Amino acid sequence: MSDYTIQSISTYDARFPLPPGAGTDSIHATSEYCLATTLLTTGNGPCGSGFVLTLGDGNTLVCKAIQMLVKPLEGMPIETVMADFGNISRKIADHPALRWLGPHKGVVQLALASITNACFDLWAKSRGVPLWKLLLDLTPEELVRVLDLSYLEEILSERTAVSMLRAQLPGRAQREAILKSGYPGYDTSVGWMDYDDAKVTELTKKALDQGFSAFKLKVGSPDESRDLRRAAMLRNLIGEESTLMFDANQRWHLPDALRICGELAKFGPYWIEEPTDPDDIQAHVELSRAVSPTKIAAGEHIANRVLFKNFMQAKALSFIQVDCTRVAGVSEFLTVSFLAKIFDLPVVPHVGDMGQMHQHLVLFNHIALGLKAAFLEHIPHLRTHFIHPARVQGGVYETPQEPGASADLKVLAQT
Amino acid sequence: MSDYTIQSISTYDARFPLPPGAGTDSIHATSEYCLATTLLTTGNGPCGSGFVLTLGDGNTLVCKAIQMLVKPLEGMPIETVMADFGNISRKIADHPALRWLGPHKGVVQLALASITNACFDLWAKSRGVPLWKLLLDLTPEELVRVLDLSYLEEILSERTAVSMLRAQLPGRAQREAILKSGYPGYDTSVGWMDYDDAKVTELTKKALDQGFSAFKLKVGSPDESRDLRRAAMLRNLIGEESTLMFDANQRWHLPDALRICGELAKFGPYWIEEPTDPDDIQAHVELSRAVSPTKIAAGEHIANRVLFKNFMQAKALSFIQVDCTRVAGVSEFLTVSFLAKIFDLPVVPHVGDMGQMHQHLVLFNHIALGLKAAFLEHIPHLRTHFIHPARVQGGVYETPQEPGASADLKVLAQT
Repeated sequence: MSDYTIQSISTYDARFPLPPGAGTDSIHATSEYCLATTLLTTGNGPCGSGFVLTLGDGNTLVCKAIQMLVKPLEGMPIETVMADFGNISRKIADHPALRWLGPHKGVVQLALASITNACFDLWAKSRGVPLWKLLLDLTPEELVRVLDLSYLEEILSERTAVSMLRAQLPGRAQREAILKSGYPGYDTSVGWMDYDDAKVTELTKKALDQGFSAFKLKVGSPDESRDLRRAAMLRNLIGEESTLMFDANQRWHLPDALRICGELAKFGPYWIEEPTDPDDIQAHVELSRAVSPTKIAAGEHIANRVLFKNFMQAKALSFIQVDCTRVAGVSEFLTVSFLAKIFDLPVVPHVGDMGQMHQHLVLFNHIALGLKAAFLEHIPHLRTHFIHPARVQGGVYETPQEPGASADLKVLAQT
Repeated sequence: MSDYTIQSISTYDARFPLPPGAGTDSIHATSEYCLATTLLTTGNGPCGSGFVLTLGDGNTLVCKAIQMLVKPLEGMPIETVMADFGNISRKIADHPALRWLGPHKGVVQLALASITNACFDLWAKSRGVPLWKLLLDLTPEELVRVLDLSYLEEILSERTAVSMLRAQLPGRAQREAILKSGYPGYDTSVGWMDYDDAKVTELTKKALDQGFSAFKLKVGSPDESRDLRRAAMLRNLIGEESTLMFDANQRWHLPDALRICGELAKFGPYWIEEPTDPDDIQAHVELSRAVSPTKIAAGEHIANRVLFKNFMQAKALSFIQVDCTRVAGVSEFLTVSFLAKIFDLPVVPHVGDMGQMHQHLVLFNHIALGLKAAFLEHIPHLRTHFIHPARVQGGVYETPQEPGASADLKVLAQT
């Protein structure tokens, strides 16, 4: 392996219009998915590419913030960066003029995530391996050095994290079977809010034929009866043996959430996602208690490891939907996964990356951390834009083999 | 009064270098205070001016976000805006392309705060009264319509808020005495981190002579013994009868915070501020229990009303340091003050505005909401830059009489 040096750094504001209705939910009348992309160039070596998702013009703010934060990496060999990435990323986040804009949330956090994801991509490419293999091949000590565990010390010290990895070594060979069988997927794209019933029906049948057995429906319509009608319709379509999830995208205040989740529970959902304000830990606690055994999921708007720690400590969630394009990238995604392991909670990522990077991370989580394999969200709308789009066959993510984190966009391919 | 129409909207990126050492703490090696300013122009009428604080280059991001968010206000009469400001500000925050960058935190929240503060300034100017008087003269119903109470419904409905104001009407006349006596201040500027002992001593003596009886010392030095030595020095200087506060600006992880706060408690602080990560509710709960009867204060990094609700529900804080330049402006400041009243907690604002707007808001809180008058932080570094700088005499804020929110910068004065 070579210590490729980061020679130049740039950003790219990639915007992709979506087909009509795709991406819509109770809060977002989304019309485009935008990727605020960081590019790390190494002269004759590979180019590292990482991104975060935004939903439009905000992409310009994130790109500008990336340019402000990324400067310390210029001229550093990628191996030097990654040998101490926990400390380096913490210093980037603590930028004296920009920390005040967060800390660790909003635009500056998204910028740090984009930078971090590009670093991991470059690291894997420079070693000629896919990201999942890079992570699995690190020693426990090396792996823990890519994490910023600050403000988690009372629960997750570096020593604890190393011990957790060591404790999982005996079962690894067995769990590596998943590299051959592939990681199960679930289909979010049958049930966008603005799809009419006919379209939901058509897409669900198609997804069943393709081998999917888990489906998500957007709820939180102003017309509550529409939610219930469509929930019944989808359950009827997929049968009792398939898995159904509901996603309200934060629509309800607590009193409404308590009432409506009670109604939706009758359709046997695997989870109800983002029922209310994503900052409201106490509301999630009350909801989780009230709708039990129905389970509550959230994560795409939980901005950092400390907030996740609090959600877990309060027993507010049953599924951890951390997203490496929302927390501070691959590194903090892994940190939150360690926390989930401690609290014995499943990690089922939200995929702001359309699953491209997360297909690597869930393999690490299962094999190295011993997290029970669940399934990974699948959203196909951007697949034609990636050089190596995730291959989902028979409802299963095939293990990626190309070097890197599968984040390269065609539009940026060097010609 | 006239329905002045907002004809044009602009931003101004104001930056003010600080004297050496001023503004420094355990986290921020601050060298300039920057105000991301919104200007609302009304043709022949007054110009509304509002801002938020940042600590440098991030100001450009906030100004850009203001420009993206503020468009719906163009062409609206200010009275129309303010008659339904709770809903209008909520719609601005829910911008379909920008909400994803928060929601309600980071750059987009700061932008909303700047816009909101400009609206309140314009409203007060258009009625020819200082902001405190505008707020006091509103009916309870009118006041509550400037608030966005969404996601607080289980605790603070509109009806509850109106009732709270009505319940306080009988004692108002008596509490209005504070308009004459002035609102007590406390002095943060004696104890910045990088000031040496001689400077702290000199400034403290001067402040004592000026009538201050409450002082804040920055702690969280890498050298713990320095904190303890300076705490002893300052306590000795001001005597047992004066009030002393410590501010760690998030420096310690929980195990360190537990230990060091125990040491600092020996100097009889009125509070210990921001001992650890500002997102970590559970850590604040554990600290509050451990150091009792010493009290924990925080707020300058608590980004919105829902987070404040959670801190209060968890009994994590004893002082609520909400700041109208950190939450979504004057409106959300007032909302958090209602919550504090419900939880029987004192509101002692952090003053990202140097006290300019907050001198109005604490008067409202005391007179209309019946919150016990405490004291208001005083930071004088920018006073020469305001057209109407807060007048602090004898340790007391004199009640401002000029129309508006006291936010006008000299650099923007129309010539």
